[in-house]
Amino acid sequence: MSVHLASDRFGKSGVRLATVERDGDRHVFSDLDIDVRLEGDFEAVHTRGDNSPVLTTDTMRGTCYALARHYGARSPATLGSRIAERLLEACPAASHARVDLARLPWERLAVDGAPHTHTFRPGPGGRQLTTIRQPRGQAPTVSAGADGVRVLKTTGSAFDSYIKDEYTTLPETRDRIMATTVAASWGYVDPLVADHAAPEHERLLDEVPATFCARFATHDESESVQHTLYEMGEAALAAHDELTWISFRMPNEHHILADLEPYGLDNPNHVFVVTDRPYGVIEGTIARDGPSAARAEPA
Amino acid sequence: MSVHLASDRFGKSGVRLATVERDGDRHVFSDLDIDVRLEGDFEAVHTRGDNSPVLTTDTMRGTCYALARHYGARSPATLGSRIAERLLEACPAASHARVDLARLPWERLAVDGAPHTHTFRPGPGGRQLTTIRQPRGQAPTVSAGADGVRVLKTTGSAFDSYIKDEYTTLPETRDRIMATTVAASWGYVDPLVADHAAPEHERLLDEVPATFCARFATHDESESVQHTLYEMGEAALAAHDELTWISFRMPNEHHILADLEPYGLDNPNHVFVVTDRPYGVIEGTIARDGPSAARAEPA
Amino acid sequence: MSVHLASDRFGKSGVRLATVERDGDRHVFSDLDIDVRLEGDFEAVHTRGDNSPVLTTDTMRGTCYALARHYGARSPATLGSRIAERLLEACPAASHARVDLARLPWERLAVDGAPHTHTFRPGPGGRQLTTIRQPRGQAPTVSAGADGVRVLKTTGSAFDSYIKDEYTTLPETRDRIMATTVAASWGYVDPLVADHAAPEHERLLDEVPATFCARFATHDESESVQHTLYEMGEAALAAHDELTWISFRMPNEHHILADLEPYGLDNPNHVFVVTDRPYGVIEGTIARDGPSAARAEPA
Amino acid sequence: MSVHLASDRFGKSGVRLATVERDGDRHVFSDLDIDVRLEGDFEAVHTRGDNSPVLTTDTMRGTCYALARHYGARSPATLGSRIAERLLEACPAASHARVDLARLPWERLAVDGAPHTHTFRPGPGGRQLTTIRQPRGQAPTVSAGADGVRVLKTTGSAFDSYIKDEYTTLPETRDRIMATTVAASWGYVDPLVADHAAPEHERLLDEVPATFCARFATHDESESVQHTLYEMGEAALAAHDELTWISFRMPNEHHILADLEPYGLDNPNHVFVVTDRPYGVIEGTIARDGPSAARAEPA
Repeated sequence: MSVHLASDRFGKSGVRLATVERDGDRHVFSDLDIDVRLEGDFEAVHTRGDNSPVLTTDTMRGTCYALARHYGARSPATLGSRIAERLLEACPAASHARVDLARLPWERLAVDGAPHTHTFRPGPGGRQLTTIRQPRGQAPTVSAGADGVRVLKTTGSAFDSYIKDEYTTLPETRDRIMATTVAASWGYVDPLVADHAAPEHERLLDEVPATFCARFATHDESESVQHTLYEMGEAALAAHDELTWISFRMPNEHHILADLEPYGLDNPNHVFVVTDRPYGVIEGTIARDGPSAARAEPA
Repeated sequence: MSVHLASDRFGKSGVRLATVERDGDRHVFSDLDIDVRLEGDFEAVHTRGDNSPVLTTDTMRGTCYALARHYGARSPATLGSRIAERLLEACPAASHARVDLARLPWERLAVDGAPHTHTFRPGPGGRQLTTIRQPRGQAPTVSAGADGVRVLKTTGSAFDSYIKDEYTTLPETRDRIMATTVAASWGYVDPLVADHAAPEHERLLDEVPATFCARFATHDESESVQHTLYEMGEAALAAHDELTWISFRMPNEHHILADLEPYGLDNPNHVFVVTDRPYGVIEGTIARDGPSAARAEPA
Repeated sequence: MSVHLASDRFGKSGVRLATVERDGDRHVFSDLDIDVRLEGDFEAVHTRGDNSPVLTTDTMRGTCYALARHYGARSPATLGSRIAERLLEACPAASHARVDLARLPWERLAVDGAPHTHTFRPGPGGRQLTTIRQPRGQAPTVSAGADGVRVLKTTGSAFDSYIKDEYTTLPETRDRIMATTVAASWGYVDPLVADHAAPEHERLLDEVPATFCARFATHDESESVQHTLYEMGEAALAAHDELTWISFRMPNEHHILADLEPYGLDNPNHVFVVTDRPYGVIEGTIARDGPSAARAEPA
Repeated sequence: MSVHLASDRFGKSGVRLATVERDGDRHVFSDLDIDVRLEGDFEAVHTRGDNSPVLTTDTMRGTCYALARHYGARSPATLGSRIAERLLEACPAASHARVDLARLPWERLAVDGAPHTHTFRPGPGGRQLTTIRQPRGQAPTVSAGADGVRVLKTTGSAFDSYIKDEYTTLPETRDRIMATTVAASWGYVDPLVADHAAPEHERLLDEVPATFCARFATHDESESVQHTLYEMGEAALAAHDELTWISFRMPNEHHILADLEPYGLDNPNHVFVVTDRPYGVIEGTIARDGPSAARAEPA
């Protein structure tokens, strides 16, 4: 029998790194959860126990902290690009570096009605995601996303006219609660992030979720999660020319009308049972038509 | 050998219940996680397998949903009191009912700068807690609290001048990050919640955490988590005459200055390692002096 | 207004500590999760920001690792007692020390049918719990327990003849699945753990859960979780003279008979819906009668 | 601007389903967590809110329970194949069905030294995974795996001779603890699962993890996680002709030698700090050489 290493990858996950930057009294707090990965020619590591090509994952961790001292963590795209470059430089056997940076949302605590200079609390909205992919000898590309973006609407959502078979018991409704925790990712028309593109990317990390959440709210003609997902994608692509595609994963967090009939009570969309499991999952990618779409590459 | 049942308690946990109430177009969404417990004379259930005194936990669950239809979930104190009363009525063997209601924070999504009428996202701040304790034949008492209230300050916190022994390696500092996720509970001077007291209680569920978080922010002379905890308690009792005591559990969520010296780099409070475990835990109860303190009863 | 510190406590949680001890080729792996707490006269710390009485929680952590080097971690009672003593010695303001040690279950991996000398996998059964309470100047006491002890039986459990009120819809049954994840704690008749008592305590950490799980299995006349809980407690006290009381918290992890009637199918206890929430909670303490019971003190 | 739906998928996750089958007194308990997904031509659902092609995810859930009544849950491959077929039959717009079934490990509780007929506890080892992929009009394929398979060895693992750069501080070692929680997946040489192949698949769900865990234990010449991962893959392919490839994801769950030097203590591989984060991640796929490898398709 003979076998071979068909693929491999290694790196560090869960590098939790925060920075404080000071604009006078006003502090900026950045809080990241970083994953790094290398791919390349590491066959000897696996087959012969030869560690000479290995950059240890502990060194990857140290690299993140050291480069955060040099470049700060305010711009995940800038820090991520520097980390990717450095890992390829330090590890000749690697052909590709990937860095995923999740920024945790913090907002200034309001004290006496004013945002505090140096006290923070978790912000609403989810984590902002930046992915840097760097093939050796080529420019890095950036893609982006958000996860943990939870939204709920108490009306403006229907679900009916679907297939009924012998295993269908779900009642049709023209008025229900729709709730989800959006995970989104998107690609840029021009995926090369030079350092001067980072500010634009950072702006979109704020703006894109705001756009699709607003569309979630205003889409009161919703016939299904799918229907709203598509509207959210269309709204994001319409509002942000920089995007060429956007993908969503939207669990349907069911709020089931409580069955109060056995108690002799009606329930006109008043009381709901909130459930965890099972849950529906709706996924979809919306892409711009035309030549730029050719570059669309939902991961 | 002979043994006996020294104590017992039973109930339902994790009753997830939401309600939608409509003020015209403006919807009010309430989202609760409810636990109920009964205590009393249930010895025959345990020792003889006699279920005749048992109100099933499934019926307790149903009672929560049914009473939410009657009374709504907008006021946890009102709903909780009705549930406690009903459980004692339905279960003659029970001598005490307890209902814990955690309200999940939701806020209106802002769309085009205005709070939306029927779309919500998780609010900042933690869960608001209401506990109803109802002994049979007596008025119910209410106590309150909050959990998951996360705050972080990037300066205004010191820690030094502590005991040094042979196992002490922690460096002293006059400037560090202090972060915690507060769990608080408090008791009222007049603990009887008649229905007319519920609005006051609801108001304090919002105001007390705002008060102690503001003091967390402004207490820039902090010498320790203990020092700030006490200030937070004092501020809450000073601002809210209704409270007779307040307890805090404050984990010290360590942000450790990254050691960049091995890399030949300085680190003037710039880059931090965020850690989960182990974590310090600081607990304390602050009580008002004088006669009202006699009624203080931290759970 | 004047207020005071009514109570306080501080310490470290989540100290994760493992040791390897070598009996020749045969390695013994011990894996602990330790919490430590101190109480005493720390008012100045809170009210004046005076840290001179403070033993830092980082030093507590260091103390655990250092004493594990001296005493090993094979006996949680021995290690915990040494930690408690040392913390009181190092911190004169403290009047009480408490150390909670949870031992994670590991068992030897079987390779070619034989237990391996140095490879382990998680064992069945839950965590073994040891609590040391040490008041200054007195002997330490030990209490014990287990959590995460999951068991399920597919028959031999009934539930009927309970109260029916207007909110009761649960169908009665003479045959159901009963599943729970037991959390247990117990106290010893002679609570002083001299070092020579530690081996007995360690043995009971293994044997007591085995006893109550066996009774869970054999009690096929179960009329309710309460009924079985009592039998489990009685069996533990009958088999182990060293125990004076035992407490259980047993969630009722509902396996609900799937309602297949809408699909035109019967379901003779064949297919079940496994649910997480809500769940019933049954708690009870069984104590030995007579003089020793006077010392019973369920925490 | 114009956009289009580039891809989509929908289904139900977290369908928790258990069955009891009776061989006389001896009960067989099967416990599954099922995910189902459909793909196909659902564009009108997204773009026009037309639900006529939709099989609701609630119906998918019902289908799982109904088919478990017909086919039992003892064979995940059989049940999963029937579910996949049925979903395609019930939903004409779907071109592909996928069913993922995770079997939770339960073992018989030993009572008086004998395996009990109807009482179970969680078994060691992780979840057994079966994936059915069914394109319309073609035979279903099955792939397999395991997750949550935790193993730890206290010696027989080295890590040295790696790259040292300016960010490297990790000390080299010839003797360390190696711990991981394996997630594995594998493909079959002949991926068509006719019903008669299901027993073979079920057997391999038990045997393949046993094989690679044994190799983890015996590979005492380990120079790295990568090195051992490859050996585990090679052993699995050598022992089980049915497999054409096997993939592993193995986090390096670091047990760091406690630094006791500041306390004046040595630490000859005795006391370790157990850490959660960050953690190394090592991934690799081992494939059989030759023509069968052409069919290798790590997901």
